[in-house]
Amino acid sequence: MKETSEIFQLGDTIKWEKVDDKLERKILGYDDKIMLVKVHFKEGGIGYKHSHFHSQTTYVESGKFEVTVGNETKVLKAGDGFYVPPNVEHGAVNLEDGILIDVFSPVREDFLEK
Amino acid sequence: MKETSEIFQLGDTIKWEKVDDKLERKILGYDDKIMLVKVHFKEGGIGYKHSHFHSQTTYVESGKFEVTVGNETKVLKAGDGFYVPPNVEHGAVNLEDGILIDVFSPVREDFLEK
Repeated sequence: MKETSEIFQLGDTIKWEKVDDKLERKILGYDDKIMLVKVHFKEGGIGYKHSHFHSQTTYVESGKFEVTVGNETKVLKAGDGFYVPPNVEHGAVNLEDGILIDVFSPVREDFLEK
Repeated sequence: MKETSEIFQLGDTIKWEKVDDKLERKILGYDDKIMLVKVHFKEGGIGYKHSHFHSQTTYVESGKFEVTVGNETKVLKAGDGFYVPPNVEHGAVNLEDGILIDVFSPVREDFLEK
């Protein structure tokens, strides 16, 4: 497992990693403390509810998403964001094909081990 | 100083904070360990070279930037990214009006104190 990403990430040279039929992702910059992951949701794609000890902050680059964090649910669009405290259950349902920029602290080692 | 952001950030409701004539930013989700900042560079805007103890990972949402990290310089476009290790000098010169999504670990307390 590499401990840090390269300094520069050229998006076109990073292959999409398939998560399921409607979800794919690219890992961009990271070290032990931080990781940025670009996630493409095809229409109807679901980020199933889950939780982890990492802090997460996400930026909606495009599309529309129904996002649930803990007991709160909101529809978010391009330019919006959400924050997930450690160990709080969260999930996202895609309403219009789009991209989330998910960022974690510390690094998601589980993503690198695959 | 608030210790965490709200859970949801609605981009349209967050005012741009002027950094200089060609640079403005919005702080999105954060806690003590992580912070996501959207930075709008007007054409020719400059993120002057500086360094900080935080790890940084950045995503290019739009536009074109000449980015320097340490001794390496590259032109990046939408979909690319870069990683800045702690205490490494870095800067960006905007070549075409665009947006960077800068993420830091830990939080940039200096951004919240303003």
